Amino acid sequence: MRPPETGEVVLKTLYLSLDPYMRGRMSDVESYAEPMQLGDVMVGGTISEVVESASEALRPGQVVVAYGGWQTYSTERASSLRVLDPDQAPITTALGVLGMPGFTAYAGLLQIAKPTAGETLAVAAATGPVGATVGQLAKIMGCRTIGIAGGPTKVEHLHELGFDAALDHREDDLDGRLRDAAPDGIDIYFENVGGKVWDAVLPRLNTFARVPVCGLAANYNVSGLPQGPDRSQALLRAVLDRSLTLRGFIQNEFAPTMFDDFLRDMGAWVREGKVQYREDITDGLDLAPEAFAGMLEGKNFGKTLVKVADHS
Amino acid sequence: MRPPETGEVVLKTLYLSLDPYMRGRMSDVESYAEPMQLGDVMVGGTISEVVESASEALRPGQVVVAYGGWQTYSTERASSLRVLDPDQAPITTALGVLGMPGFTAYAGLLQIAKPTAGETLAVAAATGPVGATVGQLAKIMGCRTIGIAGGPTKVEHLHELGFDAALDHREDDLDGRLRDAAPDGIDIYFENVGGKVWDAVLPRLNTFARVPVCGLAANYNVSGLPQGPDRSQALLRAVLDRSLTLRGFIQNEFAPTMFDDFLRDMGAWVREGKVQYREDITDGLDLAPEAFAGMLEGKNFGKTLVKVADHS
Repeated sequence: MRPPETGEVVLKTLYLSLDPYMRGRMSDVESYAEPMQLGDVMVGGTISEVVESASEALRPGQVVVAYGGWQTYSTERASSLRVLDPDQAPITTALGVLGMPGFTAYAGLLQIAKPTAGETLAVAAATGPVGATVGQLAKIMGCRTIGIAGGPTKVEHLHELGFDAALDHREDDLDGRLRDAAPDGIDIYFENVGGKVWDAVLPRLNTFARVPVCGLAANYNVSGLPQGPDRSQALLRAVLDRSLTLRGFIQNEFAPTMFDDFLRDMGAWVREGKVQYREDITDGLDLAPEAFAGMLEGKNFGKTLVKVADHS
Repeated sequence: MRPPETGEVVLKTLYLSLDPYMRGRMSDVESYAEPMQLGDVMVGGTISEVVESASEALRPGQVVVAYGGWQTYSTERASSLRVLDPDQAPITTALGVLGMPGFTAYAGLLQIAKPTAGETLAVAAATGPVGATVGQLAKIMGCRTIGIAGGPTKVEHLHELGFDAALDHREDDLDGRLRDAAPDGIDIYFENVGGKVWDAVLPRLNTFARVPVCGLAANYNVSGLPQGPDRSQALLRAVLDRSLTLRGFIQNEFAPTMFDDFLRDMGAWVREGKVQYREDITDGLDLAPEAFAGMLEGKNFGKTLVKVADHS
C-alpha cells in the first residue's frame, strides 16, 4: 500500500468486476487496449472503500467506483473516483447494470442501433450484464426481442427478463430456430459474442440492419485464423447488398456526453423494476482467476463479481 | 416501340450508361437488386430524346434522364423523367459526375464518411466516375487523398485530379506503398472495389475510421468463396478493436433528401472547374457488351458510356 500524496486516497477493494475485455489484456495480440505486462497488477473496475484520505473531496468510509484492479488495496487520485450513495442502489450495481456493462447497452442502442418501435432486435450472451440490459431496453423502446444464451436455465431466465423469444445456442439447428423466431428478419443485432451466433444471424439481417459490435467473447481464447473458405469478402458483400451498418465501439467513446443521462434514466428504470439485473458473486480474490475463466466459458449467470472484502 | 398512353412518352436513346452494378443483375446470386430474367431488356440509365409525347409535361426534342435500358427506344411515364438543360452542362454528365455515380460519391461522403479537414481518405478505382469524384470532393473538404488505380496512365491522371498520393495496384507491395502514402493511417476508405485493395487498406484503418461500401467490383465475376483461412471473424475483430464503421449503401437511399442539394453543389463545382470528370464513350449499342466487360476489367478511363444515337 503506497501512502497517499496530496489529492490521493487509499482504497480497500470491496468488489472486483470481471469482464470479457480483460481477456484481451492478457495476451499480446492486437486489441483496442495495450496488453498487460508481466508483473503488472491486472486492471479491473472495483467498488472500493476509502480507508485513508489526503483529499478534501473524500473521507474514510465513503464508497467509490474505482479502477483499482485485482488487488486488495489501491492508491488513487480522488478526482478519478465517483462516490456512490448506497441508499440509491446496491453498490454492486455500479459495476453492472448502472456501470460499464449497462452503459455499453445504453450507448450502443441510442447512438448506433437507434431502434424504432416494431423493429426486431437479437442479442447473444443475453443473460449477461450487457445482453440482459440490451434486451430490456429494446423492449422499453418497443422492439420485438430475441435473446440467445447457453443452456435451459439461462433460456428460462430470458423469458423472465421479458424477451419475446429465447434460443439456446447449444441446441441443434440455431439457423432454423432463429428463422422461426424472426420471421420478418432482424433489424438490430447487438454483437458481443461473434462465432457461430454471428454466422446464424448474418443471413437474417434485414436491409438497413444495424450491428453495434461491443465484444466478440467467443473468439477471445482463439489464436490464429480458422480454416476456410474465406468468408471475409462475402461479409463485405452482405454489407453492400443489404446496406448494413457494422460499428465497433467501446463504451468510453460515449461516456463524456451520455453517462449522466444514463445514470438518470437507468437509475429510474432499475428503481421502478423496469430493468432487472442479476449478479454472480464469487467470494474471495483468490478465486478470481477461476471465476474469470468460468465467465469466458459461460458459466456465470448475470454480472460476474468477486467479493474481496466487507465494508468496514 | 410501344405507342405512348396518356402521360407517357416515346424516347430515343442517345447515351446508355454502363455501371458495375449491372453485373449483379446478370446473375442470380443474392444481391441488393432482383436479377434480370432471360428475355428481359437489360436495365440501364440513359440520356434520351423525346420523340413522341402523350404528356403535357414534355415535348418532342427535349432531352431527359431516363432508365431506358439497353435499347434504342423506350416508352416511359413522363413523371419518371428529369428534363436536362443542355446549356447548363453537357448532357452526358447527367449519367456521370452530375448523375448516379457523382451522387454516390456525394451522399457517401456527406452521410456516412463525414470527413473533417486534415483526415486521410483512400479510394480505389480512383479514375472511375465514383472514385474520381470522391477524391476531388474530399480534397474540397480538406482531406489528404490517396487514389488507387490500375496502370501508369491512370496513376498519372490521378495526379492531374489533385490526389495527394497515387498508387498503382498492379505493382508489387501495395501494402508497403500504402503505408508510406498514409503515414498517419487512413480515416476514410470509400469502398467500391474490394479484393486485394481492401486487404491492403484494412490494416491501415485508424480508430473511428469510416468505410462507406458502395461497390465491390473486384468480386463481381467471382463465384463461390475463396480458399481459407477464414478471415471473417478477424474482420469483425478489427471492427471492434478500432471502432470502425462499415456501412453499405445504394445511392437511392439518400436521393429523396439530398439529390437537389447535390445538383446545386456539384453543378457549381463542375462549372467552376473544381471537380473534373472524364468520359469513356463507345460508339454503337452493339458494342455495349464488349464495353461493359472491359469496364469490369478496368479498361475504361472515366465514366463508361455508349453513344446510341444522335440528337435529331
